[in-house]
Amino acid sequence: MFEPFWKEVGNSATVVIPGWQKMSYFSDPKNFCWFLEPEFANEALRLHRIVGNAVTDDRHIIVGVGSTQLIHAALFALSSTEARQPVNVISAAPYYSMYSSIADFMKSGMFRWAGDAAAFNGDDNFIELVCSPNNPDGEIREAVCGNEAGKRVHDMAYYWPQYTPMRRPADHDIMLFTVSKATGHAGTRIGWALVKDAEVARKMGKFIEMNTIGVSKDSQVRAAKILKVIADGYELPDVEAGSKFFHFGRCLLANRWKRLRQAIEASGRFSLPQFPSEFCKFLEEHAETYPGFAWLRCEDQSIVDLEVFFKTINILTRSGRQFGVGPEYVRISMLDRDANFDVFIKRISSLE
Amino acid sequence: MFEPFWKEVGNSATVVIPGWQKMSYFSDPKNFCWFLEPEFANEALRLHRIVGNAVTDDRHIIVGVGSTQLIHAALFALSSTEARQPVNVISAAPYYSMYSSIADFMKSGMFRWAGDAAAFNGDDNFIELVCSPNNPDGEIREAVCGNEAGKRVHDMAYYWPQYTPMRRPADHDIMLFTVSKATGHAGTRIGWALVKDAEVARKMGKFIEMNTIGVSKDSQVRAAKILKVIADGYELPDVEAGSKFFHFGRCLLANRWKRLRQAIEASGRFSLPQFPSEFCKFLEEHAETYPGFAWLRCEDQSIVDLEVFFKTINILTRSGRQFGVGPEYVRISMLDRDANFDVFIKRISSLE
Repeated sequence: MFEPFWKEVGNSATVVIPGWQKMSYFSDPKNFCWFLEPEFANEALRLHRIVGNAVTDDRHIIVGVGSTQLIHAALFALSSTEARQPVNVISAAPYYSMYSSIADFMKSGMFRWAGDAAAFNGDDNFIELVCSPNNPDGEIREAVCGNEAGKRVHDMAYYWPQYTPMRRPADHDIMLFTVSKATGHAGTRIGWALVKDAEVARKMGKFIEMNTIGVSKDSQVRAAKILKVIADGYELPDVEAGSKFFHFGRCLLANRWKRLRQAIEASGRFSLPQFPSEFCKFLEEHAETYPGFAWLRCEDQSIVDLEVFFKTINILTRSGRQFGVGPEYVRISMLDRDANFDVFIKRISSLE
Repeated sequence: MFEPFWKEVGNSATVVIPGWQKMSYFSDPKNFCWFLEPEFANEALRLHRIVGNAVTDDRHIIVGVGSTQLIHAALFALSSTEARQPVNVISAAPYYSMYSSIADFMKSGMFRWAGDAAAFNGDDNFIELVCSPNNPDGEIREAVCGNEAGKRVHDMAYYWPQYTPMRRPADHDIMLFTVSKATGHAGTRIGWALVKDAEVARKMGKFIEMNTIGVSKDSQVRAAKILKVIADGYELPDVEAGSKFFHFGRCLLANRWKRLRQAIEASGRFSLPQFPSEFCKFLEEHAETYPGFAWLRCEDQSIVDLEVFFKTINILTRSGRQFGVGPEYVRISMLDRDANFDVFIKRISSLE
């Protein structure tokens, strides 16, 4: 959905890599994250400072193949190869549907999925995945397990100004971000982690070394360029009005949410989460929340399974069951292409 | 070491990606390997046909973040989540040092490292990793476990004409290749698998989806360009003599191996594997073998640990112990930059 912005900025976001460049495995041999391109790290840190969404001082930055690889890396780094029992991985429902698969699919003896954090009654041995703003429902979240002995990974993929007001710079032990949600470049497969503890960061880097021997340099170079164009749009004095990416994204999402809320209200059969307007320190004004997903709840008692219901009118959704709750919920992407979103609104509206 | 070639070919190998292209997760939504860029697949298959190193008919092609991710994917695909016991992963010593770590580092309940295939006395439940030409020693290999019930993964990273004669197109169930060893572009992190069985291919794709939600499009586009330049060098009628990549690489390696063999012979303390000259169907002449690694054996009884010995004269090697054999062996890269290789030869020669 952000493609029109990138068409508009034109050549300044184009990456050019000659055949003889970026051939080696190594990007920065002296860094323990030796596969991290310094120009990518610099642009990511610069953008955090401009946006004010994360504390970057005294953090280690680890690049990964999307934030998905970094979730694997974080679970690995926070677990022990020596432990007799795998550590429990939890997240408050509704939770991102991939968390459970990521924790379980390799049948690792180091960690295992243990479900909804709110229902967790286990011992001190847990890792809570905290997604904020939350996928699927857009809520701003804190960890729900207060137990000091547990460990936490904060998935901040959607903590960018197009989606939600920037309340304060997030300040957690492990924070994950991804180019995919920040700029729309999912195919580039670049995520990054800001990590407080040096030993945890080293183990995350080790995981990526064992898993894929580092991360595409080409994509890191491209991501650096993309992040730079966004940062320049806010920092350079002579840029055009149309080159402010977060303003562009926010405007697009505001329009989509307005249309969705109208269609939902007209149907009278579903409800959406409500978000209070809050002060955004980046925009320097009160701002609404426009999550990347619509988390739809069915209010019509005659519909048992909302995903199945929507399938009958050719709307593809993901059932609440995949997120640890009931079939009265579905998640719908708000980030699809314009044409697809238009069709979706048309079909929802046909339900009136 | 192949950098000079890529400098010579100039702009034809340069990749250019505008900011608005290749943004989506999806490359080929109708393919079960939906993250595979068709242009990359086409160029990889085209190069196999030109070189004659692998049977490509009726194979599924899966792209991965280097061949490392594809080894993980293959172990996952050949194991069962339902099995009571993890499947044994074996490889004949000396074996690539990463195989054992890849099999064990996640403590998976699906598979586990079981060591040297030649010493394996287990049941039918095994996966043999066959590296041919072998890393570290350059030997052409067949599976050593004849048991029909076992499964095999053929790591063919070095089966390219710069390293070894092309005897015949390899024809195995799962064959792994990587741009890193084929063209020198390690930083691009692109590997691919040719897979006979559709279900195995589907499970490998599933692994990559769960592990990293696909593979960098930017790197696939770049790899396609790089492979195309090599293929064009052999297929287009009007290319210059200097644009034949495999001839260039072979010439470079021949020169290095000549210098290394002279220095080793002069020292009188070490030996190197010998390889018979064989007919190469690609070059259409008898050709020597020039492995990407030198596998050095110590013949001097006064040296107990060859890696430690070389460290004293500032030559970094990897000990035979990491490859499942004794400290009288070390592996030395033949693919380093010219300047580093020169220093290495100088230091070896100083031992006379």
